[in-house]
Parts: sequence; C-alpha cells; structure tokens
Amino acid sequence: MMELSLIGIGTGNPDHLTLQAIRAMNDADVILLPRKGEAKSDLLDLRRGICDAVLTRPVRVVEFDLPTRDAQGDYLGAVNAWHDAIADVWREQIALHLPEGGRLALLVWGDPSLYDSTLRITERLQRGGLEIDLRVVPGITSIQALTAAHRIPLNRLARPVTIMTGRLLRDHGWPENADTMVVMLDPACAFEELADQDIRIWWGAYLGMPNEALVSGPLAEAGPVIAQLKPRLRRENGWVMDVYLLRRGPA
Amino acid sequence: MMELSLIGIGTGNPDHLTLQAIRAMNDADVILLPRKGEAKSDLLDLRRGICDAVLTRPVRVVEFDLPTRDAQGDYLGAVNAWHDAIADVWREQIALHLPEGGRLALLVWGDPSLYDSTLRITERLQRGGLEIDLRVVPGITSIQALTAAHRIPLNRLARPVTIMTGRLLRDHGWPENADTMVVMLDPACAFEELADQDIRIWWGAYLGMPNEALVSGPLAEAGPVIAQLKPRLRRENGWVMDVYLLRRGPA
Ligand SMILES: C[S@@+](CC[C@H](N)C(=O)[O-])C[C@H]1O[C@@H](n2cnc3c(N)ncnc32)[C@H](O)[C@@H]1O
Ligand SMILES: C[S@@+](CC[C@H](N)C(=O)[O-])C[C@H]1O[C@@H](n2cnc3c(N)ncnc32)[C@H](O)[C@@H]1O
Repeated sequence: MMELSLIGIGTGNPDHLTLQAIRAMNDADVILLPRKGEAKSDLLDLRRGICDAVLTRPVRVVEFDLPTRDAQGDYLGAVNAWHDAIADVWREQIALHLPEGGRLALLVWGDPSLYDSTLRITERLQRGGLEIDLRVVPGITSIQALTAAHRIPLNRLARPVTIMTGRLLRDHGWPENADTMVVMLDPACAFEELADQDIRIWWGAYLGMPNEALVSGPLAEAGPVIAQLKPRLRRENGWVMDVYLLRRGPA
Repeated sequence: MMELSLIGIGTGNPDHLTLQAIRAMNDADVILLPRKGEAKSDLLDLRRGICDAVLTRPVRVVEFDLPTRDAQGDYLGAVNAWHDAIADVWREQIALHLPEGGRLALLVWGDPSLYDSTLRITERLQRGGLEIDLRVVPGITSIQALTAAHRIPLNRLARPVTIMTGRLLRDHGWPENADTMVVMLDPACAFEELADQDIRIWWGAYLGMPNEALVSGPLAEAGPVIAQLKPRLRRENGWVMDVYLLRRGPA
C-alpha cells in the first residue's frame, strides 16, 4: 500500500511552509523532487533548501527528471500527453524507491488544487491499478502571495472573483458581470487587449522570492511598464512567473 | 508610528500556521483578539490556544469586544456601519495599549484577502489620519482547506473558477460560462436553487477542525443531505461555517 502526500509549499518563500507541511515532509519515507532542466535549476535548489531546513528525520530525498511538454499540436492534447508521461515516470520512481510500498511525498508549488497537475497525475496512477492512500496538504497560493504583497483584498465587498488563465482572457475577454479577475499562467501579456478600459492592475512576479517585483496602477499606465519589464526579467532570471489582479469600474 | 500586521492563521487547524505567521506573531508588541460573544467562544479559545502554542517571546495578548452587526436595513449599509464601529474600537484599543506606537498584530481567519474586513477597517484608520505601516501575512483559505479535504483540484484543466457568496448565487444564479464555482458566506443553502441541474457538489464545514464534516456527490442527492445536516450542526455547535464547490457539466 502506498501513501502519497501532495504537500503545498507556497510560492518560493520558505516561510510560507505550514506546520502541517513540515510534519508531512518529516513523516515521509521518500520525497521526490523534479528536475526541470538547467533554466529552472534555482527552483530545484529552493526545494532542496526547504528539505535541508525542515527535515529532522532521515527522509530520503530523491531527484528525477521531469519530462518536458510537447509545444506542438493542440494545447489540451499536449497537456494530457505530458501528464501521461509524468505518470509513467512517477510509476518508475515508485518501483525503484518504494517497491514494497510506503510513504511518498511530493512538494507542490503553491497549493495542489490551483492550476497544478499532481492530482490529475495521481488519478492516472490510480486508474492504472495502483492503490494509493492520498493526502493533500494545503499551501499558500500565488494569489494570496499577490494580494498580501500589494496589501489588497481579493474581492470587492460582497462581490465575486474570477480566476482564469492568460489563454482564457485572450480567447474570451472579460467575463460578463465580473468586476475582479485574477490571471495566472500568462506567458505573454494578455491584459494588453483590455488597455482601453477603465481597469486597475496589481501585478507581481517572483512573489515571495528575493527578486519579487511589483507593479500596480491604472492599466493604461501600468500595463506598458509590465510589458517592458517582463521580457527583461525573463532574460535576467532564465524564467518568469507572474500573476495579476484586474479590477474594473469605480474604486 | 504604528506597524500593523494582519496575519492569516488558516481555518481552524493550528497546523495551518505558516512559519511567517509564527514569526510575525512573535515580532509583535501586542496581539489583539476579538471576543465575538458566547456562541463563538470556541473560536476565541482557538486563537488563545494558537498564541499559547507559538509565542516564545513576551507578547501582550489583549482581548476586546467586537461590536455586532445590525441585522436591520440594507445589507451593504449595515456592513459598512459595522466596519466603522469596529474601526472605532480598534482606535480605542490602540490608544489604550500602544499610545506611543509600536507593533500591533491581528490574527485573521483564513487569509486576510478573502471575504474579510480587516483590510477595509485598516483603511478607515488610515483615512482617519493614523499613520500605519501595514504588513499582510498570507494564510490558508477555507477554499484550500475544502479542496485539500476532498482531494480535488479547484479548476478543471485550463478552465476558470468563480468565487462568490451565497447571497450572490441566490440573487444572480449561475454565471454565464462558469463551470466551477466556490460559494462562501451562505448561512442558508443557496445551492438548493440549482437542484435540477447537472451539478456536483463538494461541501465542507468546520474545515481543519476536529468536527470537520464533508459531503460530496451529485447535487440532487447530496444537496438534501447537506440541507438536513446543516441546521443540526448549527444547533450542536452554536455556529456553523461551511463552504462548497459546484461543478457543472461532464466529469
Ligand atoms: C502551474 S501554475 C501553479 C500555481 C500554484 N499551484 C499556486 O498555488 O499558485 C503556475 C502559475 O502560478 C503563478 N505563480 C506561481 N508562483 C508564482 C510566484 N512566485 N510569483 C508570481 N506568480 C506565481 C503564475 O501565474 C504561474 O504561471
Ligand atoms: C468572513 S469569511 C472569511 C473567509 C476567510 N478569510 C478565508 O480565507 O477562508 C467566512 C466564510 O469562510 C468560510 N469558512 C471559513 N472558515 C471555514 C471553515 N473552517 N470551514 C468551512 N468554511 C469556512 C465560510 O464560507 C464562511 O462563511
């Protein structure tokens, strides 16, 4: 029998770790850390550092190479194929390091529920016949890191909030009736399509990390600043992760 | 000069505390704990317990009575008047316990950004002329506690999520184009209006607490179970806090 813990670790600040996450890490037999290639090696270092800092028991920390996603073809098809490939690699790692079963843990960026694939990959293992006792440990999401850094509420008083991706914003525009939107997973700058509207933006990159960058203001002014800054940050750091909140209408 | 830290503490499980929250609590001169009356005294006990468990420095923990909200009149008007009244009480407490300034901390349920009033009350103090150096420490929200307890993703793959209140769901129904909705602040059972639709519900009350209750399934079946359970839980515990996720369409 396998026990699998998906442990939310927050978004880059080791102090985002909860006591529950620290306990779950120490309860594991094996922690698997994904290697995502040279450009993102600082993210692997960060996970290694977290393990060094909080493990007080002799937990085995094992690294493995994460398959890369095919950039060709339709988006959903490519993502599903990628998740299949990761499931295969997890299966191999489990056979290698926990052939008799035991307690496996994975450190998940932010919270495991939010635009993250580990739950979907776990489901593939289960459908494939592996019996898994699954635990999920919640973590601070990049959305909370964003609102905390800007010291703003997520919602207007008694109003709704929509969370979406850059791709959705680009394809479908601003949803009917929404006044607050959070946009994640936007490699480009999908907000540029809204530049002519009365919208404020609160943007953050590398939230919780030493190189955290924040910009906010009316979209017409702050948008171009972000669009200039982002490619520069990507060049300097090898990668960029950013998230933003948009609010429409009177303050 | 006042330094004010709004510290997210998660939703009832003391292990939801982050290392950052623990550090911020210990850095305070004074922590203010609101008394919300007899019925909710267990929530005050929980905050007291958290202070006892994590304070390693002689921080003063001070309790004060939170004004109650007027149930009469229009909802937004009543909420705004209530926030005004709370701002007055904060001002009194600050004058009493930190007349020369210093570091004040408040423990905020879940995360300070999500359907919480402390940022709006802080703004009132600032508008009233108090100079405040504000810090926000993110916390685990009831949404993350819900998805972790049910071990489900928040979003469908590459799809959006809308967060709203029971009141909004009742007044406006299911928003166009949404396929996942999270509903908070629903004293009744607003989901009952949707009972005839092809929707699944994942519901949780007292998430993270010893009396955590979970129900999930097709809304047509799980809805009536929750509608029966909720008044009983409220009777037994004096209060009930619950949140749910609704997903429409094919699994
Ligand atoms: C695959 S999703 C994972 C989200 C994660 N599970 C969470 O809870 O935040 C990655 C996206 O999250 C956002 N993100 C994650 N960490 C971030 C950070 N430190 N700063 C800014 N955005 C971040 C970005 O929008 C990025 O494209
Ligand atoms: C005033 S809002 C505060 C939300 C909080 N700031 C958060 O981050 O979750 C209160 C609402 O949060 C939800 N909630 C908070 N704690 C909860 C818990 N332990 N279990 C279930 N729902 C909870 C309920 O929907 C409740 O009506």
